Amino acid sequence: MKTLGTLGERETIRLIEKIIKSDATIGPGDDCAAIDLGDRFLLVTTDMMVTKAHIPKGMGPYDIGWSIVAVNLSDIAAMGGSPLGVVTAIGITRGHPIDFIEQMADGMNDCARRFNTSIVGGDTKEHEDLVLCGTAIGEVSKSGILLRRGAKAGDLIAVTGTLGRAGAGYHSIKRNLGLKEAEDSLKRPWPRIREGIVLSRSGIVTSCMDISDGLSTSIFELSRNSGMTYEVDYAKIPKAKEVDMAFHDLERQKDLVLNFGDDFELLFTIKREEEENLLKLSKECGCPFTVIGKVTSGEENILIDGGKREKLENLGYEHFRTRQ
Amino acid sequence: MKTLGTLGERETIRLIEKIIKSDATIGPGDDCAAIDLGDRFLLVTTDMMVTKAHIPKGMGPYDIGWSIVAVNLSDIAAMGGSPLGVVTAIGITRGHPIDFIEQMADGMNDCARRFNTSIVGGDTKEHEDLVLCGTAIGEVSKSGILLRRGAKAGDLIAVTGTLGRAGAGYHSIKRNLGLKEAEDSLKRPWPRIREGIVLSRSGIVTSCMDISDGLSTSIFELSRNSGMTYEVDYAKIPKAKEVDMAFHDLERQKDLVLNFGDDFELLFTIKREEEENLLKLSKECGCPFTVIGKVTSGEENILIDGGKREKLENLGYEHFRTRQ
Repeated sequence: MKTLGTLGERETIRLIEKIIKSDATIGPGDDCAAIDLGDRFLLVTTDMMVTKAHIPKGMGPYDIGWSIVAVNLSDIAAMGGSPLGVVTAIGITRGHPIDFIEQMADGMNDCARRFNTSIVGGDTKEHEDLVLCGTAIGEVSKSGILLRRGAKAGDLIAVTGTLGRAGAGYHSIKRNLGLKEAEDSLKRPWPRIREGIVLSRSGIVTSCMDISDGLSTSIFELSRNSGMTYEVDYAKIPKAKEVDMAFHDLERQKDLVLNFGDDFELLFTIKREEEENLLKLSKECGCPFTVIGKVTSGEENILIDGGKREKLENLGYEHFRTRQ
Repeated sequence: MKTLGTLGERETIRLIEKIIKSDATIGPGDDCAAIDLGDRFLLVTTDMMVTKAHIPKGMGPYDIGWSIVAVNLSDIAAMGGSPLGVVTAIGITRGHPIDFIEQMADGMNDCARRFNTSIVGGDTKEHEDLVLCGTAIGEVSKSGILLRRGAKAGDLIAVTGTLGRAGAGYHSIKRNLGLKEAEDSLKRPWPRIREGIVLSRSGIVTSCMDISDGLSTSIFELSRNSGMTYEVDYAKIPKAKEVDMAFHDLERQKDLVLNFGDDFELLFTIKREEEENLLKLSKECGCPFTVIGKVTSGEENILIDGGKREKLENLGYEHFRTRQ
């Protein structure tokens, strides 16, 4: 009997996508679904967090509540949208303290408010384990929607913020390194809502997604969607300062930056001639926007490191599959 | 340490609602949240199904998929809305057969298509148990929105369809009674989308909700929301034909009809003078709409049974609370 363990998460999702017939303008496969409202698109995205795989040690109930809202808002940001509201469903045991759910609700509420939206509804059910499901709704103009597809050879690849910080935070918690800011950014992801809106309005972006599953996986996703290949220059990637503090070993640093994920930055492509405009937008947002490579029409995705060209490996996190 | 087990589901939800500050026109506490889109309301609702409490024996993967979509569409129906799309998040073990998720996706897809909408996106995560979360999005005109509040003394109470069928189906599966139609209606709930739209457009409805948690609990909900009391005439309640076949005992029949829930019919109130119009709408829909009592400004909710007036008890299903 073939089980999901033999398929892996991505293949399982593709299997479901083959069965489901979506009427939406943008259906499964992008950060959000986009439904045509006539004058604009409605954006919808849902994300489930289960205790075992998704809730790192050191996260308290407030952080958990914050995160389930933040990860969904990050998908709205990746499409260039403005949030309209969030609903959250909570499966929780009857043994959980009342305090726990109060703090979790506080975290949800604070995250939503921080990004100019609110928790508009939800569901609470008894379960044997803690499981959270958030759904965010947003809106975006028809011309401003940012998709995973659309990049063309010659476009530049860019990211918001810095990479590797959430991974450094993970190792800091694990090994008691005391990298407080990095730990906080793992525990309370910061969706790039404002940056997404600015990028959407700029008209310079040709494709976009968030980097929650790691940079390498996200590059492969953009590549699959555009049919193009991507060349990333490792030296140009803006590394979080905590990456050096988490590991001296350069290969382990590289793994954090390329593969760990959970950074919730935006990965996007812009038209080649717009690099200068990008820097202006970066100042406007008060957030670094950094060009890290270019879109090509080659054979495979490439990482340039220390002048050497190597094949970029897709090493982001995947569920289900039994690991060797 | 106080736990959720001491609070019960309803109190837990109220606790969360006190913390969450919703910006929506209609926030938590109704069947859906309603977000103002300018010319109309956007409706959003989310429902989680966990294996232990919500998936009756006899339900296959197709039924489970159908149900998670149907229960959410039922909330859209209860507000008088037309569905715009559904997203589904699935937590599932790596040991589940591939067949299982294929059939579940089929059930989701078929239910959405049957009610003129589609699954527009989702999420799939590895979990120790099967857990599903659906979120439905809909729209409704500003004047046509149906809320739990709004009934006035003198209004008539009505229901769609018949009651007790899902409960009879539950007992049929448990005791092998072979009540196929009743079993099917438990396994594949039928959201009253069409009826909700017709009622919304009619202008005769003063309040509405679905009866998923049982008639008695739903009456108490409408009562809490309107500040009115409700008098239900047991003899007038349209009982499903299978109720008699599931139990000879009249008290047990009454319990099925009043308290079991899972019927996903609509419970609503109309202006007193509109009873005749209601029957016209019923014909238009091809679905029975039956007046079962009236709204009063008394002391408590009343059940009239065999000419005797008794206090209506709120005996619907509640999670968390330890049962005596």
